[in-house]
Amino acid sequence: MAKFKGFLFGLFLVGSIALNIFFLTNNLYAGYVNKQQLSWSQRAAAEAEAVASVSCSGHGITYLDGLFLDGKPVCECNSCYGGPTCSHFLPDCVANADSGDPLFLEPFWMQHAESSALLVAGWHRMSYGFADQSSMSQVLQNHILKVHSISRNAITKGKYLVFGAGSTQLLSAAVFALSLNSSSLARVVAASPYYPVYKTQTDFFETAHFEFQGDALLMKRSSNSTGNVIEFVTSPNNPDGLLRKAVLQGSSVNAIYDHAYYWPHFTAIPAPADEDVMIFTISKLTGHAGSRFGWALVKDEVVYLNMLKYMQLAELGVSRDTQLRALQLLKVVLEGDGREIFHFAYEKMRDRWENISQIVSLSKRYTIQDIPPQYCNFFEKVRGPSPAYVWLKCEREEDTNCNAVLRGANIIGRLGSLFNASDRYVRLSLLKRDDDFNLLLYRLKELVSKEGGAETL
Amino acid sequence: MAKFKGFLFGLFLVGSIALNIFFLTNNLYAGYVNKQQLSWSQRAAAEAEAVASVSCSGHGITYLDGLFLDGKPVCECNSCYGGPTCSHFLPDCVANADSGDPLFLEPFWMQHAESSALLVAGWHRMSYGFADQSSMSQVLQNHILKVHSISRNAITKGKYLVFGAGSTQLLSAAVFALSLNSSSLARVVAASPYYPVYKTQTDFFETAHFEFQGDALLMKRSSNSTGNVIEFVTSPNNPDGLLRKAVLQGSSVNAIYDHAYYWPHFTAIPAPADEDVMIFTISKLTGHAGSRFGWALVKDEVVYLNMLKYMQLAELGVSRDTQLRALQLLKVVLEGDGREIFHFAYEKMRDRWENISQIVSLSKRYTIQDIPPQYCNFFEKVRGPSPAYVWLKCEREEDTNCNAVLRGANIIGRLGSLFNASDRYVRLSLLKRDDDFNLLLYRLKELVSKEGGAETL
Repeated sequence: MAKFKGFLFGLFLVGSIALNIFFLTNNLYAGYVNKQQLSWSQRAAAEAEAVASVSCSGHGITYLDGLFLDGKPVCECNSCYGGPTCSHFLPDCVANADSGDPLFLEPFWMQHAESSALLVAGWHRMSYGFADQSSMSQVLQNHILKVHSISRNAITKGKYLVFGAGSTQLLSAAVFALSLNSSSLARVVAASPYYPVYKTQTDFFETAHFEFQGDALLMKRSSNSTGNVIEFVTSPNNPDGLLRKAVLQGSSVNAIYDHAYYWPHFTAIPAPADEDVMIFTISKLTGHAGSRFGWALVKDEVVYLNMLKYMQLAELGVSRDTQLRALQLLKVVLEGDGREIFHFAYEKMRDRWENISQIVSLSKRYTIQDIPPQYCNFFEKVRGPSPAYVWLKCEREEDTNCNAVLRGANIIGRLGSLFNASDRYVRLSLLKRDDDFNLLLYRLKELVSKEGGAETL
Repeated sequence: MAKFKGFLFGLFLVGSIALNIFFLTNNLYAGYVNKQQLSWSQRAAAEAEAVASVSCSGHGITYLDGLFLDGKPVCECNSCYGGPTCSHFLPDCVANADSGDPLFLEPFWMQHAESSALLVAGWHRMSYGFADQSSMSQVLQNHILKVHSISRNAITKGKYLVFGAGSTQLLSAAVFALSLNSSSLARVVAASPYYPVYKTQTDFFETAHFEFQGDALLMKRSSNSTGNVIEFVTSPNNPDGLLRKAVLQGSSVNAIYDHAYYWPHFTAIPAPADEDVMIFTISKLTGHAGSRFGWALVKDEVVYLNMLKYMQLAELGVSRDTQLRALQLLKVVLEGDGREIFHFAYEKMRDRWENISQIVSLSKRYTIQDIPPQYCNFFEKVRGPSPAYVWLKCEREEDTNCNAVLRGANIIGRLGSLFNASDRYVRLSLLKRDDDFNLLLYRLKELVSKEGGAETL
């Protein structure tokens, strides 16, 4: 009996010691995982994760600043989806391909959740100025230069950097900067088809120093480019995705190169751009259109100082919150060999273009732009097209308003005349979410399949 | 011997079981503390805490986007402090009271570290538009309305809200909006002394629809206010902190009320402001000048739509990162009874004014503005002054350039002539950090104590 008691006792002791060893290693591991015990940041981090953990069936997102119902965030559904968890597809919903909202990049950021998250302390960057009293983050500038170095899409050496709230703001800043010191009125032009904002923005802000004149091609043909001329050159162009150079030449002609789409995502990079004024936007690099962040590379010091003056008087520099976010995003872009986002984006856009091309190739009524294969400095090989937009043309004589034709097929595009082109053209965005693109593709298939004589799909 | 062995054995077992109990309760507690195990947000939260944990001797801060040395963030030192941990005071350093940088509120946010922290996911708000396709957060709008309701400083009912990148951008947007549809040129005025940006900004952006004319008081005296007139009314005024009404009246006169400082921090609130165009900024409410966020309350729908058009063409709406940050800050402002920040700010500004007043009262050469006690709707009592700036006057006949006099005493202020006033005046900022204010106070004491005949301090 005593021996049995002793045996039980021994068993208890061994079991207890084993339990201790288990607890000890568990604590050590937990301590390793929670390398640093969080304190004041715990609540914010937990809240962000809680909001993001709500399921929207893969067809919606919840946001920290969205609506809440009974303390739970409400799903903001993708186009054509509805219901509390965005699980209902709305079959008669229109395929809206109007906007250049670059949400095709959303999955990239969801895949990089950990590295792209950012925790902002309540006291972070309250001041009007950085340590050097400027309104531009030096660290962010360095990251931008590195991104250009890796993508090989722009010469940055010997250029000044200016930040703006999107390329939108920098377009205006550049027009002001190039016309301020001029004795004569600067006439602002762009070669059709061109991005509508060049005209609407320049008209709205028209001063005694500049005015929007119209089509650069018309000006070229009329040989009337004397006096100060400012030409917007979009390369690759919006809407047709073709690489461009300035149409006008001369000592009194200044070009503003809008390189929003000059990334491997959307075009071959034959050589790094090396113009006097080059504008880029994070909207079309990382997809963060809502952040309102862009930058200009400027060669001339006077133009640079004028653009800084514009930014100072317009809004005292770009938000520090925006600059911090941009920095975090570019850190992720530069991770590893810094090439991942370009591969992700290019493959997605290329596949979308190929899908659309295939459908349209079966049509007798519609054509799309032809973008020839070209050598790319980034991929170091000849590559095919992957433009941001389809520039669709209605070829049938009676289809003078192509947007109306598509509207009949439950597709919304952007009218050609908005780009100073014919209404036979419609711009269709390839930039949006998979849900948007898939519906667009489906509707186009339907449209083409209804053509008499076209091969059935 | 056997009994002793048995005793040891028992001791081991009891000890082991005690250890079991310890580990068990420890794990349960750790599980309670880490209510939710973090995953993808852990890195960002840990990084933010690590950066913030670096000591800068209470005279500097480290930032996520600051410089790093050997993997450690570098302290950005407050004015007049230096060294790797900002522990060296630089005794001959100038007291710089030029800028209205509202860093006096920094300690408030450090005290509210947990509630004011914000974790932004990489995929957060990438789109150009919110769910309603607008560029203005509905949730943020609601919070702004609540803040006005608690501070009782503005009637919001029946008004439209417009967001801008700081009040700076909204000043310009309002001028455009009020002059766009006018048949005649709108002349823009402000009553001296006035905030310099009204002139510099309006001159820079001058269109065919408006031009800066000058002093509203001159226009009043010359009875020349026919035709479209736009008057900037700053209340309380910058630089002198006095409450103001429009100087000009008439059906063709439109006033833009710049209420940047119309908070209990800086002035009595005799009644909620109820003007047709009222502009506020988060810079002077929470102190987040770097965020570039402001809002306008607008009565007239056409003016409102014009301001929206301005925001659309200028930059496609305010950054979503900025709006998210502003929302988090206003959530903290509204915590509890929503009155804490007003008490914090008022007491700090009041104490600073009393300190300055006391010094200057001993001087025969310098005077400051007189702000009479006034009933305040927020504090529900008569209260004294707590303005953002000292509007110092050099009274001695030979001191025609007051800024130069102060410069001789190692103080930098802002020249009176910049405000369209005499150079006998200097504006001294009371808005900066304790380090800045303490040095300003010290230098002023020195200056006044050197006056012949003045009481020694």
